Amino acid sequence: MNIINFHGNKEIANDFLEFLRGKKASFLLALSTTKTCEIPNITQAGIEGKIHLTPILDAEFLCSGKVRSIGDIATTPKGVPTPALITRAIHLLKPFNDIELLNLGLTSQPKINFFNIYDFKLKPSQRIDLGAEIEAETLFEIGVEFGKNYKSKSDYIILAESVPSGTTTAYATAKALGYDCDGMFSSSFKSHPKSLKSKIINKALLDISSSMNIFEKLSRVSDNMLIFNAGFVMALIQNYRVILAGGTQMASLLLIMNSIIETMQGEIDSKNLALVTTKWIYEDKNSDIKGLLDFLNFNILAYYSDFDFSESQIEVLKLYDKGEAKEGVGAGGSIFYGYLNNLTKEQITKEVEKGFM
Amino acid sequence: MNIINFHGNKEIANDFLEFLRGKKASFLLALSTTKTCEIPNITQAGIEGKIHLTPILDAEFLCSGKVRSIGDIATTPKGVPTPALITRAIHLLKPFNDIELLNLGLTSQPKINFFNIYDFKLKPSQRIDLGAEIEAETLFEIGVEFGKNYKSKSDYIILAESVPSGTTTAYATAKALGYDCDGMFSSSFKSHPKSLKSKIINKALLDISSSMNIFEKLSRVSDNMLIFNAGFVMALIQNYRVILAGGTQMASLLLIMNSIIETMQGEIDSKNLALVTTKWIYEDKNSDIKGLLDFLNFNILAYYSDFDFSESQIEVLKLYDKGEAKEGVGAGGSIFYGYLNNLTKEQITKEVEKGFM
Repeated sequence: MNIINFHGNKEIANDFLEFLRGKKASFLLALSTTKTCEIPNITQAGIEGKIHLTPILDAEFLCSGKVRSIGDIATTPKGVPTPALITRAIHLLKPFNDIELLNLGLTSQPKINFFNIYDFKLKPSQRIDLGAEIEAETLFEIGVEFGKNYKSKSDYIILAESVPSGTTTAYATAKALGYDCDGMFSSSFKSHPKSLKSKIINKALLDISSSMNIFEKLSRVSDNMLIFNAGFVMALIQNYRVILAGGTQMASLLLIMNSIIETMQGEIDSKNLALVTTKWIYEDKNSDIKGLLDFLNFNILAYYSDFDFSESQIEVLKLYDKGEAKEGVGAGGSIFYGYLNNLTKEQITKEVEKGFM
Repeated sequence: MNIINFHGNKEIANDFLEFLRGKKASFLLALSTTKTCEIPNITQAGIEGKIHLTPILDAEFLCSGKVRSIGDIATTPKGVPTPALITRAIHLLKPFNDIELLNLGLTSQPKINFFNIYDFKLKPSQRIDLGAEIEAETLFEIGVEFGKNYKSKSDYIILAESVPSGTTTAYATAKALGYDCDGMFSSSFKSHPKSLKSKIINKALLDISSSMNIFEKLSRVSDNMLIFNAGFVMALIQNYRVILAGGTQMASLLLIMNSIIETMQGEIDSKNLALVTTKWIYEDKNSDIKGLLDFLNFNILAYYSDFDFSESQIEVLKLYDKGEAKEGVGAGGSIFYGYLNNLTKEQITKEVEKGFM
């Protein structure tokens, strides 16, 4: 099997896959900007000086095959193209039932026609080292309401994200909530700028005290994508099967859910929920997604899609295999969808490569 | 891209395609007969003396793969098979979500089980040179009502037609409504029987005076398919995305809509509507579909499907590339649907050829 289960009950994990085999999914892309991304060298997920555009370009490229808000797709300084390239390739080979966008605070609206853009009229959040200034409790509740009312004709929902510097805010979030997670969060860099990231996070955490409630903490150090989706997913899994398509950011989202449930002394039926990521995240020596999931007090299935660019001849793609970029725009979850609809590694590789011909 | 936009805003046209990618369509085939088809040599869309059977045979073949009301599928005297062959091939390769038939005046009911046939209890309309005798306003309103109440589980609707001598009535219709459209209408013939067609149309137009309202004009020179569908489409696009799958006949339908809107000083939101035709129509030197669309006061996206029989060895199919038949039974729109569901020109060619093995 080209989809590998690495967390949760093996038998249930097997049957969850089997149940989704051949079924049609909606792909929801949650987009937000935290001004944390403007801190020099904190992320390489985009074009220097224009990193705030990355989620907008990802959305435009995924939906329309074009980028409109700037001349080209988002790449790292080394030229590693956004994982949106992988997600788009899957969509071309086996179209999602639907692609919908969640605007959770962008500097401008993606330039796309026809596709549904849910606009929650949010501003980009602030730098976490200066205080993120998010109305976290309200935002969480907006997410819950949206999840309660969300209707889909698809068999299941793949929820993905594009948030530059999102691993920094995800890490700060987990730390602020008290999880002992040092060394567990990923980065778009191959070689972490650890000292810088730690410096920013430590500065952000100075603003957190143990007397604060969860939402007060999130308001200061988190990002819109994490807070909204924590609420959204908690409501959504009452009615739909949901794949969290991402790496350690999606794990942080689960940790928020976990903390809220604990505080409320509630329970959650997580049988409709799974996390799916890339092999690059699963095998990353500088992070530990499995460790993050182990913190959860509820059961969660997790998988990685066994895909890499070993069959490709394109140099910038092979940088993925060396640890650059790793995940984003639901790349791992998209490949999962592709594999469950009988795509092969070879087909996916060839389709991604077309962008370079 | 194998679907070429030739009318409307390029960016919106791109995104319309992208939005429909992989989505499922219902195929609605509007069938009617005008006794105009009985005028010798006015059309070659069928078997001489039995041309009134063409829409019935097209419907039978498309739905069931068989023809029942006569021994064989409709062909021209040169043996060019009906474009239903192309639509059927697409359906075999990537089935439509549904095929439904609209009986808008046939000499007999198509012999098909299970498939939905909406029967509006209409008679074939009369020869336009003798007065078509259609209750146009009532028929238009029946179309509007049907469109308001029409329910579909599909993501979008492909509306196609089979009306022998339909380009003659379409041309007369546009002329009667005052459009300066000489030389713009297509024909199933490679070499137009222009003098005959003009003679019939001119005779029909003698019956039209400028003091008549739109419906009085349509009553005399149009056909049931055009009038009903003008109302149907105006209502349908309030709720569904619609592809008009056809050539200059569908353009004439749009001109009817245009005239009605103008007279009523109304407006129309046409963002849910596009016309899709074949490359044979788009490249036809003897007609001008783009010119017809330029008459419209509302925006309309139009595309042709880049398909021909250059990869085929079957002689009668290659006659399409020489200008015979060209379009009908939604051939262009069907190929559009096939392409958006990842069929290739080679696959479609091979499937059509199976009918000759």
